[in-house]
Amino acid sequence: MGSSPVGLHRVLAPPGVLPQAADQLDNRAEIEPDEVRIKVERLNLDAASFRQLSEKHSGDGTAIRAEVLEIIANRGKMQNPVTGSGGMLIGTVDAVGPESPLGLVAGDRVATLVSLTLTPLAITDGLVRWDGRSEQVPCAGYAILFARSIAAVLPDDLDPELALAVLDVCGAPALTARVVRACGSSTVAVIGGAGKSGSLSLVAAREAGASRTVGIVPSTAERDRLTEAGVADVVAIADARDPVALSAAVTEALGGPADVTVVCVDVPGCEHGAILATADGGTVVFFSMATSFAAAALGAEGLAADVTMLIGNGYLPGHAGYALDLLRKDPAVRRLFEARLAGH
Amino acid sequence: MGSSPVGLHRVLAPPGVLPQAADQLDNRAEIEPDEVRIKVERLNLDAASFRQLSEKHSGDGTAIRAEVLEIIANRGKMQNPVTGSGGMLIGTVDAVGPESPLGLVAGDRVATLVSLTLTPLAITDGLVRWDGRSEQVPCAGYAILFARSIAAVLPDDLDPELALAVLDVCGAPALTARVVRACGSSTVAVIGGAGKSGSLSLVAAREAGASRTVGIVPSTAERDRLTEAGVADVVAIADARDPVALSAAVTEALGGPADVTVVCVDVPGCEHGAILATADGGTVVFFSMATSFAAAALGAEGLAADVTMLIGNGYLPGHAGYALDLLRKDPAVRRLFEARLAGH
Repeated sequence: MGSSPVGLHRVLAPPGVLPQAADQLDNRAEIEPDEVRIKVERLNLDAASFRQLSEKHSGDGTAIRAEVLEIIANRGKMQNPVTGSGGMLIGTVDAVGPESPLGLVAGDRVATLVSLTLTPLAITDGLVRWDGRSEQVPCAGYAILFARSIAAVLPDDLDPELALAVLDVCGAPALTARVVRACGSSTVAVIGGAGKSGSLSLVAAREAGASRTVGIVPSTAERDRLTEAGVADVVAIADARDPVALSAAVTEALGGPADVTVVCVDVPGCEHGAILATADGGTVVFFSMATSFAAAALGAEGLAADVTMLIGNGYLPGHAGYALDLLRKDPAVRRLFEARLAGH
Repeated sequence: MGSSPVGLHRVLAPPGVLPQAADQLDNRAEIEPDEVRIKVERLNLDAASFRQLSEKHSGDGTAIRAEVLEIIANRGKMQNPVTGSGGMLIGTVDAVGPESPLGLVAGDRVATLVSLTLTPLAITDGLVRWDGRSEQVPCAGYAILFARSIAAVLPDDLDPELALAVLDVCGAPALTARVVRACGSSTVAVIGGAGKSGSLSLVAAREAGASRTVGIVPSTAERDRLTEAGVADVVAIADARDPVALSAAVTEALGGPADVTVVCVDVPGCEHGAILATADGGTVVFFSMATSFAAAALGAEGLAADVTMLIGNGYLPGHAGYALDLLRKDPAVRRLFEARLAGH
């Protein structure tokens, strides 16, 4: 069998599914003519995945590390079996097949923009340099890109960790901007506005012409941080899992329900509040991997809410460059990211 | 505490959530001033829910009936704990609170257009008239509508069971028509085209101006039925869980990937195939309650697919009348529905 642009030839079980749906991938190091091998330096675990692992093991870094190693060894990829999510990686191009269309050359420092959930991966250092207590996982090993994978060459002007943190969520600002532009002048609520995808979505909404924006955060610490960054017109505190409190906070901040609501918090149970906070004829964009399809679909029906609900697609053409440019142009959002990376 | 238009006052546990997210609702018979009580004749279980119950009990009707009774007794509503889905009901208006805005009067024969997952419900006959082997559940009991609930008075010109089957899926044709109209002339693939929501979505797509449509079905029996109905330009057989086979079937039928793909099959694992079958810049509408949010979001990213993905909202203004009119205008789709109700 020849190689497939979407990686079907690397699926070991079950047969016939795409790599993301596979239980197990073939992570052999030798590459097909259209594949690329990356020497991995660092994994960036998806926030929902790391949170689940951390809660399961009560923050015990050694146990978390052992489970991540076991997942990768068993599955040939890093996909949390509970959340279904993965993350991304950073590394250096090690080998390029002669038929690869990705335009990469050996030595390029890259970040993968396709999820770890479909990327063949092997770890060779037992993750000895990781304490198991952060989403950022320094490591040695290799990963494989298919013909239709996406990788961004890391920019020279930004710290690689900073660039990686931006690239990890770069679908959110791109889709937010597209939705806001399509709506014309609109009010925008970003639930989880102080996080990575949330703060970039706020900047994108403003840049795309939003008439007024609110960032909803869960705590006074996040409120102060987001207020200082100045990327939202209003910052308000509300529990996103409490539909009544959330919609009241949005309505008060915007003078009515939002035309566009963007959900960026990685906790379950935010669907109803987001729907209730959105105007009739408006749009909800769900980026959180903790979103329940049934809760959203039935919630809108149950509330007789005529809202368009989008599943946040992590890919849009040009999304990486767009997100990096937002960070370059906005020193305040850059400081937010740098503070997060420094653990504040 | 006064009554809430979305039914917060009926939530027993956990506190603060909307009725759909509740573990347990208060199903007391006495109504608040803005509520309506319905004397229930028949439940129509959601297809994904009935399938799960039927498979769990290997088609044993007595065991299925016992579990449905137990769910309703424990939860005060019919919401399958595994699928999270419910269904709808038919009955007669029994009592109308003086402040109800729904415009119903005692004696009206109605179908509820909000899900059973958020409707307080009590069964009083032990479901003795139901053999546990069909989604249609004849019963005696009562249900409560809130101020913001939606109920349709059953039309005089259609058999009530037929009207109920149409109303149960009336969000799908309405949203399909809206999406197709917004795209202009477009090609449309309906996955699960011979089912209730699928066949109505095909009719809606054509009526909304689709340039070419394909209905994808799993078997020769469904192919023959859908071909005879004539509601799709092409009918093709493919396993919707096989991404490569599904996208090949759609591409062959339409001369390329679909501008709009509508997913109406109630089995898990159709997300990747639907994405792969859709053109860049196109739209996928997921109506199946078996849809996984993470599989869709990560699948599109992993395939570098620039597709807009919609969570199928069961509510649009005017959806009930629109769907009933489609059935009235198209004798072939009406025959499809009648054949399904007759068990063929």
